[in-house]
Amino acid sequence: MKVSELGEFGLIDLLNKTIARSRRPSPAWKRLLIGIGDDAAAWEIIGPVQLATTDTMVQDVHFSLATTDFTDLGWKALATNVSDIAAMGGQPEYALVTLALPGDTQSEDMVALYKGMMKMANHCGVALVGGDIVRAPQLVITITVLGSAAKEGLLTRSAARPGDKIAVTNYLGNSAGGLRMLQTGLELDRRTTALLKQAHLRPMPRVEEGKLLVSHGVRAAIDISDGLVADLGHICEMSGVAAIIHLEQLPIHPVLKKAFPEEHVGMALSGGEDYELLFTAPSKVMEKVQHAAPCPITVIGEIGRGKHGKVTVLDAGGNAISLKEKGWDHFAACS
Amino acid sequence: MKVSELGEFGLIDLLNKTIARSRRPSPAWKRLLIGIGDDAAAWEIIGPVQLATTDTMVQDVHFSLATTDFTDLGWKALATNVSDIAAMGGQPEYALVTLALPGDTQSEDMVALYKGMMKMANHCGVALVGGDIVRAPQLVITITVLGSAAKEGLLTRSAARPGDKIAVTNYLGNSAGGLRMLQTGLELDRRTTALLKQAHLRPMPRVEEGKLLVSHGVRAAIDISDGLVADLGHICEMSGVAAIIHLEQLPIHPVLKKAFPEEHVGMALSGGEDYELLFTAPSKVMEKVQHAAPCPITVIGEIGRGKHGKVTVLDAGGNAISLKEKGWDHFAACS
Repeated sequence: MKVSELGEFGLIDLLNKTIARSRRPSPAWKRLLIGIGDDAAAWEIIGPVQLATTDTMVQDVHFSLATTDFTDLGWKALATNVSDIAAMGGQPEYALVTLALPGDTQSEDMVALYKGMMKMANHCGVALVGGDIVRAPQLVITITVLGSAAKEGLLTRSAARPGDKIAVTNYLGNSAGGLRMLQTGLELDRRTTALLKQAHLRPMPRVEEGKLLVSHGVRAAIDISDGLVADLGHICEMSGVAAIIHLEQLPIHPVLKKAFPEEHVGMALSGGEDYELLFTAPSKVMEKVQHAAPCPITVIGEIGRGKHGKVTVLDAGGNAISLKEKGWDHFAACS
Repeated sequence: MKVSELGEFGLIDLLNKTIARSRRPSPAWKRLLIGIGDDAAAWEIIGPVQLATTDTMVQDVHFSLATTDFTDLGWKALATNVSDIAAMGGQPEYALVTLALPGDTQSEDMVALYKGMMKMANHCGVALVGGDIVRAPQLVITITVLGSAAKEGLLTRSAARPGDKIAVTNYLGNSAGGLRMLQTGLELDRRTTALLKQAHLRPMPRVEEGKLLVSHGVRAAIDISDGLVADLGHICEMSGVAAIIHLEQLPIHPVLKKAFPEEHVGMALSGGEDYELLFTAPSKVMEKVQHAAPCPITVIGEIGRGKHGKVTVLDAGGNAISLKEKGWDHFAACS
């Protein structure tokens, strides 16, 4: 049924039922005092630090309904926000979801969107507790995620120091590989397809890894959304330092190398949307993290004293390579 | 300059400077640990209850640039969210602002928007601490406001009880009168113009009044955004009660009556966007509130045991009047 037939309150009711049916118990749900349906959501605070982040996805800018279905879209829209909380070393707890949508949107599609969000929410213990639904010419999904953290253990973009090693969780470029497959209709073997498409459509925020970094003394981190070089640039600008990356140290999955023999390095450097954690720490801390982490942690370079914000990529021979595509700028991308 | 020329990061930088220049000290700013520029904002929690609300305004759905300028739009976009916190009896503290906008938007207009938001923010002690900026075909402003409250003193939509009196703060219908003036180009005397246009363009959230209601024992409230009858309907549905409104008791400003002799009652009943507080309480509590409040508090009816959610409006002769326009439904409105 079209949402224009169902009406705003009918749609809210339908989506509330979807949440109620699919929610699994979590500490966040337990502390909720007032959920959807009042002027604001309310919950008991645990503290000591509140984290808040918000992210928007616009149809035909951030996603295309030609390459993603609504369940995957729901997962990803929430995952990108949860990833920001993970990149602070916090625990995601509550989400507010705003949908701006055309009147001829099918309510079934919105239910699928919420089912995808609830899968992600249940995975991370997040409670969906409010939002807004408005009419607009095209679909815009804005999600705010609130989380909690310890006061002395925040991961920030401004804490990188000269001498720090730079590392990432898991692999880089798989999301870009998956997007390329979806955009071009490229067909590869089953394992490759599953790995790369999954990386793009259902990224997994590194919440536990973020908390592990905090517990081992890491202080500087960001999640990779714009692309490795661009996001490392953000850390370097905010910390007033420079960085060197060694190309041959990049963790690129063998499956991506095989699928895109010419392009996998570019995908790893600037593909973006990997939602892995990129972080810096002194060598001793890094060794402890590598030992303790349940996932691969790969050192890819080091922080130095060069020009603030500058990221240099060196090839195996120690030569700097030129970087054409640094990352994603919403307006540069469209100009 | 167009934002497509300035780029995403240039625009963020410009807006950050606007915030930094115009912000005034408040407890919320003081408790802020990490502001704009990191993966998430972070602040020290005071507790015991966290409030969260979000509201979206879409160009040509919720506002028209023909009848509002960007400074007023910024004020109102934040004020509507702050009003939701006020309607819970809480203190608004932090805001996240998301702009979805076309590449040819003028950055000066966005600075004006932020100046308007900062005027409202400073007025209420709110700190602007994060958000997102994305490209979209038309302007969409989504704001999330976080606030704090006492655990035992929340104002909810579900706490109205049979026998309660129903009251509102200040006057009703002024915002609808102002909108009509703006839409039709109607020119009236200076005082009328100022009062009505101000009510529509720069609504004043009733934060102090909300806290005063809590302190005197009120437990049921909503802010009037959809319209008096529609919002009272929300209270009645959530509380499982019915309501009666007495037409001749509605607080309608003499200026509105004079400007719109035929339409002022309809404007007061269903015009919406007044952002006054509509609340219910036993007579004794109501008397205390009327005595203590710095603004007019008018009793307009009472809660009863009738059909859940039903709102009946009686004229001076005690006859029920028919209600054609109940309020604002985003999708019904466009179907």
